Amino acid sequence: MRVRKKPWAEQELQTNSHVIKQPAEQRGKWQQYFGNHHPIYVEIGCGKGGFITKNALTYPHINFIGLERQKSVIAVAARRTEKSLTNLALICDNALNLSDFFQVGEIQRLYLNFSDPWPKKRYAKRRLTHRNFLQSYRQIFGEKGEIFLKTDNKALFEFSLNEFCADDWKLSHICFDLHNSPYMEQNIMTEYEQKFSKLNMPIYRLEARYGMGE
Amino acid sequence: MRVRKKPWAEQELQTNSHVIKQPAEQRGKWQQYFGNHHPIYVEIGCGKGGFITKNALTYPHINFIGLERQKSVIAVAARRTEKSLTNLALICDNALNLSDFFQVGEIQRLYLNFSDPWPKKRYAKRRLTHRNFLQSYRQIFGEKGEIFLKTDNKALFEFSLNEFCADDWKLSHICFDLHNSPYMEQNIMTEYEQKFSKLNMPIYRLEARYGMGE
Repeated sequence: MRVRKKPWAEQELQTNSHVIKQPAEQRGKWQQYFGNHHPIYVEIGCGKGGFITKNALTYPHINFIGLERQKSVIAVAARRTEKSLTNLALICDNALNLSDFFQVGEIQRLYLNFSDPWPKKRYAKRRLTHRNFLQSYRQIFGEKGEIFLKTDNKALFEFSLNEFCADDWKLSHICFDLHNSPYMEQNIMTEYEQKFSKLNMPIYRLEARYGMGE
Repeated sequence: MRVRKKPWAEQELQTNSHVIKQPAEQRGKWQQYFGNHHPIYVEIGCGKGGFITKNALTYPHINFIGLERQKSVIAVAARRTEKSLTNLALICDNALNLSDFFQVGEIQRLYLNFSDPWPKKRYAKRRLTHRNFLQSYRQIFGEKGEIFLKTDNKALFEFSLNEFCADDWKLSHICFDLHNSPYMEQNIMTEYEQKFSKLNMPIYRLEARYGMGE
């Protein structure tokens, strides 16, 4: 996403109570942070926070953490978030550093929404569903975990299907046109998704799991 | 496929040496029939035989069996087949009866090429990748087996991905546009595929396996 630099972003990130300033210090202490034992779901690339915020409002018994590396983008998420929302945290950092922030078994689900498709083959390793990433997610999940993926990018979806299968994840709810499917009922849209949807572009979706009562 | 009735079809099926008149009698005896211990690959819905015949010519150390329920269609396949081709057999019958023709472990691969998509939901059970069919194929394969699928039908492909995953097949080579993919090199086209390809319609493809050195 190309974003205009926002002069107020830095200060928002410093002062907003939802933004975790030193996320590595929370490693292993997220239950303490949220003050409960609810499951923790993480969105990688939460953008302006539309998806993660609506989720936090809809599911008060789940804790949500949004990760976004662009300061000017996550600052918007931070500013928009109601102060009273206690089951939401935001981290301004990179997906590469997940294991610095979470201890094994500390999170239960990852959302990958409209991740960068990195279309050039030589950048395949940067795609967040490359098998190297899948293995790094496993290391954080521990015994079991699940990933919910949405994308408008057909090539990324095809690539992701193959990577998940190669790494022995169990797939379900594979969907080539989310907005004309039965899953739509409980779908919470991201900002990207709203834009693409208006252009009548199909949205692809899947759920991937391992170790879930298999 | 809607076909014109061919008055010569019945006789072709009766006299052509590649056509197995009583396939149930070959059950458990296919190695004898072919006179070797080569693997046996079966195409369900072989149509006019373009795919299976080219395969038989390309891979002389594999035995191929084409199954097609429409007499007027498989008769064309029979008539076109070179008499000298010893690794090809044709059966005019229904996919539902597979277990009447093959003993457990007798075949190693199934091809499902451009199967009827049965688009109406109430006919989902007729789709050849419905989980009931997948389980019936497992019963014939025994310990291990593989299915190679091609289709032009996006909805059938989406359905098939979900069914294979639900029935715990290991998927690979998932491809949304076969004719613009690296797999194309070794691709052998069916008659349908040639037609769809000229219309620039994408061809979907996947390989599904279980019990293969897992």
